[in-house]
Amino acid sequence: MAGANGSAAAEAEAAARRVGAPTNPMATALLTDQYQFSMAYAYWKAGKHADRAVKNPFGGEFTVFAGLEECIKFIANFKFTEDDILFLQSVMPMCEDAFFDYLRKTNCSDVEVYSIPEGSVVFPKVPLMRVEGPVAVVQLLETPFVNLINYASLVTTNAARHRHVAGKSKVLLEFGLRRAQGPDGAISASKYCFMGGFDATSNVLAGNLFGIPLRGTHSHAYVSSYMSLDEIPDKSLKSKDGSRVCKDFVSLVKEWLQKIQLADSLCGVFGETNQSELAAFASYALAFPTNFLALVDTYDVMRSGIPNFCAVALALHDLGYKASGIRLDSGDLAYLSIEARKVFRTLEMEFNVPAFGKMIITASNDLNEETIDALNKQGHEVDSFGIGTYLVTCYSQAALGCVFKLVEINSRPRIKLSEDVAKVSIPCKKRCFRLYGKEGYPLVDIMMRESEPSPKAGERILCRHPFLESKRAYVVPQHVEELLQCYWPGTSNKPRVELPSLEEIRGRCMQQLEKLRPDHIRRLNPTPYKVSVSTKLYEFIHSLWLNEAPVGELQ
Amino acid sequence: MAGANGSAAAEAEAAARRVGAPTNPMATALLTDQYQFSMAYAYWKAGKHADRAVKNPFGGEFTVFAGLEECIKFIANFKFTEDDILFLQSVMPMCEDAFFDYLRKTNCSDVEVYSIPEGSVVFPKVPLMRVEGPVAVVQLLETPFVNLINYASLVTTNAARHRHVAGKSKVLLEFGLRRAQGPDGAISASKYCFMGGFDATSNVLAGNLFGIPLRGTHSHAYVSSYMSLDEIPDKSLKSKDGSRVCKDFVSLVKEWLQKIQLADSLCGVFGETNQSELAAFASYALAFPTNFLALVDTYDVMRSGIPNFCAVALALHDLGYKASGIRLDSGDLAYLSIEARKVFRTLEMEFNVPAFGKMIITASNDLNEETIDALNKQGHEVDSFGIGTYLVTCYSQAALGCVFKLVEINSRPRIKLSEDVAKVSIPCKKRCFRLYGKEGYPLVDIMMRESEPSPKAGERILCRHPFLESKRAYVVPQHVEELLQCYWPGTSNKPRVELPSLEEIRGRCMQQLEKLRPDHIRRLNPTPYKVSVSTKLYEFIHSLWLNEAPVGELQ
Repeated sequence: MAGANGSAAAEAEAAARRVGAPTNPMATALLTDQYQFSMAYAYWKAGKHADRAVKNPFGGEFTVFAGLEECIKFIANFKFTEDDILFLQSVMPMCEDAFFDYLRKTNCSDVEVYSIPEGSVVFPKVPLMRVEGPVAVVQLLETPFVNLINYASLVTTNAARHRHVAGKSKVLLEFGLRRAQGPDGAISASKYCFMGGFDATSNVLAGNLFGIPLRGTHSHAYVSSYMSLDEIPDKSLKSKDGSRVCKDFVSLVKEWLQKIQLADSLCGVFGETNQSELAAFASYALAFPTNFLALVDTYDVMRSGIPNFCAVALALHDLGYKASGIRLDSGDLAYLSIEARKVFRTLEMEFNVPAFGKMIITASNDLNEETIDALNKQGHEVDSFGIGTYLVTCYSQAALGCVFKLVEINSRPRIKLSEDVAKVSIPCKKRCFRLYGKEGYPLVDIMMRESEPSPKAGERILCRHPFLESKRAYVVPQHVEELLQCYWPGTSNKPRVELPSLEEIRGRCMQQLEKLRPDHIRRLNPTPYKVSVSTKLYEFIHSLWLNEAPVGELQ
Repeated sequence: MAGANGSAAAEAEAAARRVGAPTNPMATALLTDQYQFSMAYAYWKAGKHADRAVKNPFGGEFTVFAGLEECIKFIANFKFTEDDILFLQSVMPMCEDAFFDYLRKTNCSDVEVYSIPEGSVVFPKVPLMRVEGPVAVVQLLETPFVNLINYASLVTTNAARHRHVAGKSKVLLEFGLRRAQGPDGAISASKYCFMGGFDATSNVLAGNLFGIPLRGTHSHAYVSSYMSLDEIPDKSLKSKDGSRVCKDFVSLVKEWLQKIQLADSLCGVFGETNQSELAAFASYALAFPTNFLALVDTYDVMRSGIPNFCAVALALHDLGYKASGIRLDSGDLAYLSIEARKVFRTLEMEFNVPAFGKMIITASNDLNEETIDALNKQGHEVDSFGIGTYLVTCYSQAALGCVFKLVEINSRPRIKLSEDVAKVSIPCKKRCFRLYGKEGYPLVDIMMRESEPSPKAGERILCRHPFLESKRAYVVPQHVEELLQCYWPGTSNKPRVELPSLEEIRGRCMQQLEKLRPDHIRRLNPTPYKVSVSTKLYEFIHSLWLNEAPVGELQ
């Protein structure tokens, strides 16, 4: 075993330095289920620990695959500290000492990882990843890999679905920090929502760790912390070009409020507004004259929030600044956004303020795919959606059914049979290809035996349903893409694919979703994308099924 | 400001050492929403940063309150590193340098935190926590506190509900690592499920960090990794007392399998079993003779898994060992557990093996509150439930609506009005008490103004509905418990309550749930627990409501 000698340990350390540490310092070799250690011990005890096992995690439904980078960082840093060993000895006192000596020397230098690139669109049955290596080590990777991939893929997919329903032109902001599963749940959520197509996050730490743009407004608490305009000590504001100083910005705001209230074109729709709110807005504008964005629903959106905001925005405009916009966090978002837009457009005309009508309207009240879809159907004037709870907790499907399957041990294929044909695992090491048609859309994925020649562009190939004999079709691909690539070559000397940047992965995800035929991705009754096997793999599965079927095979 | 001088910084460091670091290294001062920094800057800019603000997060529905320890550790360690400051400057270039100097000196030495003890049962409207301090600092704590409390309280409550439906006598195992939101989501889940009444986790790292007992069996992959009994190289097993060695444990197992198949009392229900499975079981028993627990549903529970398990268990018994039991991970758990129990009991009689009928049966297939309730109604023989996905993702309610409310600034109460009476915040600093009746059950919680004398045992007190005038009742408590206690005194010199151990918090949670009147906690149509206010607080709320009602108060 390569892991057992000094130079392999040095190589493993070098690899860890090259790849970098996992984002979460908790992602250590102890982050696994206890029974994985039990099994590792049982394998070790039976002398099977060096048997080579191949495992595949599978995705369910249309999914964006994410979490690969964290998996590779995990194995690059996989080792047991002496403290870890002491702890394991304390909880598994029945295991022989030599097993712990084995763990002391264990790392992932002789593990190979082949994976679909992160950010790819994937379909059920096609393995996301293939992990080869000593069975005891591969066993210890099972739980952390499933943990690192499941939530990552789930939330990336959820973000991509939100992007799809919102449309390309809208700005999507992730506001999930308060509702995620603790600090790291939130950081993962921010990272993978960005990967799935969001534009920015409110989470400062995620901005710092991953370079994701940061965005947000103030909260209701900020508005209610003010009582009156007297609470603003310094009322002066320099104009944007620095040429002059407005000594009393608050009076300027008040003048504008009066002008709005008297504006003919608004027919006197605005009466007296809430002065605490006005104070909060004016104070916020004094702190952030270059990007003034106000939450307008603390008291009453149309009677107070909008006129107060407009007064402050127009005062800023007098000094050469341009306000950013408003956020609506309650009420009928379709109606309020349309009404607010009307006011902005009216004021643009009335006071000749170019682009005032294009003020950004952000909506953020418990939004999800369904509510955005409903807003689209009603018509609305929202430019930007701030999404939190439903996005990061993945309300509609709170967990992905991603699992690991043992498909081969010591080059002997293993099949897991099940009454439910959809649950039968496809045995043996496989190569997987995506076949593209003339229009550039992917037509079908095909899995083949490792020994078969790759499909070629322009050459006809028979794609078969893995289990149903009658379902098969010839395909002539225009372009062929091999799906599983080598991200961790172990001792195999295969070239290693470099981990791409978060921006690159995000780009891949956006591009893959655009390349999909629209009926595969539509919200209502999407057409299932076909996943097939080659004739050789088909015959192999079925021969194995017949030969290996044990007593009580179907349950 | 106390935070601004050197000795306060030294005090803050000493406090951090005393309290300890947050469990998650990600819980740093940057873990907050970007707009919190914007607001902190706006407060600072307006000279309001030293105003004292009081904020309350509220729970929704019946909840077990959790996350306090992490909040206290968070503030004890709250500071900005020079790297943090550089990053904040880069994303907020519009802010003045003096603001960043202010942040450099900011810590939580002048913040006070009062909280309900962790593990307490809490009800809507009663504040879980009161945070007092400079408004800019309190603002920066809002998001991380909500993050640390929301998921913790949600999953603890979920675990407590599972404990309630499963009953006291069952063993509850948390198997959520694969389905949680990343590494830390999983670790939080393990910690708080234990707090809410689970007995053990499969997560090794959680076991190491919190001392939670570890449990688990092997997986299907282990079973399918074996082909035949020939794969077991060393078949010898020493008896438990060490007095003799069985040279061929596998033959002993085979003998027992034959005896079972021929047993009169079983009328030949067992035929040929799966030999790969038998090999896996025998091999696992050789590794773990003292706690042999087998997953029996890889092929067919009744035709293969159960007889194979029994053969291995009876062979172990010959050598003085006692097998632990089986795990069922698919199929009709009620039926299979009853059938398995029948076999165990029959074999106990047939072969005179004491306690063989009491073999532990663990069930673990996508269980949740509803499925356990359904199993209870059908009747089952399950002793132990392994629960994962539904537990840690909190499928039934994936996020808790816990929020922060500003209730007072510079000793001036603030009220947030809303059309929905249930959403009106209760203003001002409050003291909260739980009043207990003769039978030991809590009767009602009451909130009072800070200046009022505490309720006393044996003295009549009027408890009023916060908003409805007609709803009120006199209560004579037998025992009074003050709910908010001081966990972080800041500069106030109040005595600090020590953070209890996880075991103590778990004990409190179990005890509190037992003390609740059963109709408050029952699954179907529970009686709402009453939360009231004193007459003084009632009058104060309503005078404030009248006086402060601004233009557009209801929206």
